[in-house]
Amino acid sequence: MQHIADALGEKIMALKAPVVVGLDPALESMPEAYFAGLPDTLEGAAAAIYDFNQDVIDAVAGIAPAVKPQMAFYEMLGHAGVRCFEETTAYAKRRGLFVIEDSKRNDIGNTAKAYAAGHLGQVKLRGASAASPYGADFLTVSPFLGDDSLEPFIRTAIAENKGIFVLVRTSNKGGGMVQYAKQEDGHNVSESLAVYLKEQAQTSVGTGGYSAIGAVVGATFPKEAKTLRALMPQSLLLVPGYGAQGGGAADVAPCFCPDGLGAIVNSSRGILYAYQKTCGENCTKEQYRKSVAAAAREMQQEIYGALKAAYPDMKY
Amino acid sequence: MQHIADALGEKIMALKAPVVVGLDPALESMPEAYFAGLPDTLEGAAAAIYDFNQDVIDAVAGIAPAVKPQMAFYEMLGHAGVRCFEETTAYAKRRGLFVIEDSKRNDIGNTAKAYAAGHLGQVKLRGASAASPYGADFLTVSPFLGDDSLEPFIRTAIAENKGIFVLVRTSNKGGGMVQYAKQEDGHNVSESLAVYLKEQAQTSVGTGGYSAIGAVVGATFPKEAKTLRALMPQSLLLVPGYGAQGGGAADVAPCFCPDGLGAIVNSSRGILYAYQKTCGENCTKEQYRKSVAAAAREMQQEIYGALKAAYPDMKY
Repeated sequence: MQHIADALGEKIMALKAPVVVGLDPALESMPEAYFAGLPDTLEGAAAAIYDFNQDVIDAVAGIAPAVKPQMAFYEMLGHAGVRCFEETTAYAKRRGLFVIEDSKRNDIGNTAKAYAAGHLGQVKLRGASAASPYGADFLTVSPFLGDDSLEPFIRTAIAENKGIFVLVRTSNKGGGMVQYAKQEDGHNVSESLAVYLKEQAQTSVGTGGYSAIGAVVGATFPKEAKTLRALMPQSLLLVPGYGAQGGGAADVAPCFCPDGLGAIVNSSRGILYAYQKTCGENCTKEQYRKSVAAAAREMQQEIYGALKAAYPDMKY
Repeated sequence: MQHIADALGEKIMALKAPVVVGLDPALESMPEAYFAGLPDTLEGAAAAIYDFNQDVIDAVAGIAPAVKPQMAFYEMLGHAGVRCFEETTAYAKRRGLFVIEDSKRNDIGNTAKAYAAGHLGQVKLRGASAASPYGADFLTVSPFLGDDSLEPFIRTAIAENKGIFVLVRTSNKGGGMVQYAKQEDGHNVSESLAVYLKEQAQTSVGTGGYSAIGAVVGATFPKEAKTLRALMPQSLLLVPGYGAQGGGAADVAPCFCPDGLGAIVNSSRGILYAYQKTCGENCTKEQYRKSVAAAAREMQQEIYGALKAAYPDMKY
């Protein structure tokens, strides 16, 4: 089987698009058309989101290689929302997109194993059956509980040919509260996590030179990104903070390697809600899909252009 | 309305039980009786767990004031498991128990707001309706993303008269990887989080002197617990690590204040799976319930005894 890091890299090169579209369906921000005829209940909201997500996925398939559903917006609707998350993942995969599940899970021991099995692996049922209810390709993981809490996610990802992105430097200001604290060797928490992940990444590298034992590094701190990139030369980086959060196309270049690979940049609100400035609240679904496709195309061109400028000899 | 920290404190005193029973239903560890007649599917597993949980709740109501369902064991079963989580919470509340949802959620900005609304507050739907799908009283929260990621949880908890337990010092060894890193002022990460939480806790304190802006502090590091207790004199502490993880009754005393309050000690496996040493795999449900009640009673007596020894003048 092709290593997942290679498979993602090939798709990025084919589309010239190291970008991922965040599926953050905020009920108050979606066009009215998706709610028509549905009850004002958790189930109705989940149905609206699934319809909305299918349109977003249809609009970006062929432009972006991946989508990143943010679990909070599904989970907040209870089990109806979680079912919608499962359906969204399955739909995106049928359309040929990679799915990065943004859930930032973390816990210790057996509990971490349960999360890893549920989100990345096989859930062994009581009898002979097994199930994989979420079906994502990649999962984001929070490292607050340390290396022994990360291990089950790393082991499961490698065994299943899936990937993880461990939070290393998040895109928000407050992240420094924990992430800038210093270890005895002079590294801060982000850097020490990067050193740990470098070692782990080496245990599973594709032919393209990258590992799916990756890291989240925000676009909002480009100098730090450069340091962290150097500490994790083989890890795929998931880069949030582009667009609505303030990161520009030039800010993301330090997250990449000179071959133009090794990172994937997320935009959520900048793509999903671009329609508010053009066709507006009462747009048709067709207008909405066009707005999403245009915003995704614009992002792809900006990122690709910035990379070409930074790395003229890149691979694609 | 009575402050939630007072309500929990009253119930702890009435039962002489500063303890919480963890609902960590691991499929491979449950008695066979709960699976009889159910299909070997995610839905069947969720139904078995709900039946099992009702028996655990019935057995411990009147002994312990609270239960702590660990989300990983539900979420791993997909939306069927999340529905079981919702049903379990509702059942525990009907039986008069407090529910501490152990989900360790965390994210930034709008996403943290979505988690806080879903788990502790009101989810505003598209129309005039609102919903609270999970219904827990307390939620555990991970602080890796820093103060601005914690704020939505703190604000929502206070507004809704609910509580949070922020991870400060976890019970696992690996936790030190992040939690021992040092700030410029000499505090480590755990201590600096404690200083932050102390300030936040002060903004909502019950008549008993405690705040439901609390912290997780493991029983496995009693010296550190003493320091952290002193830094957070008003915060309720949730104490994992007792029993199966190695913490003894004497180890938990430093997590409490001299009035015998201010903390609640969790045991999960030590209570749920005590039956394996007595009636075994093929026990009846009635035998299972008795085993749970006996193990919960034993834990209550151990903790209460250790507290009485450490704090002879405690309030109950």
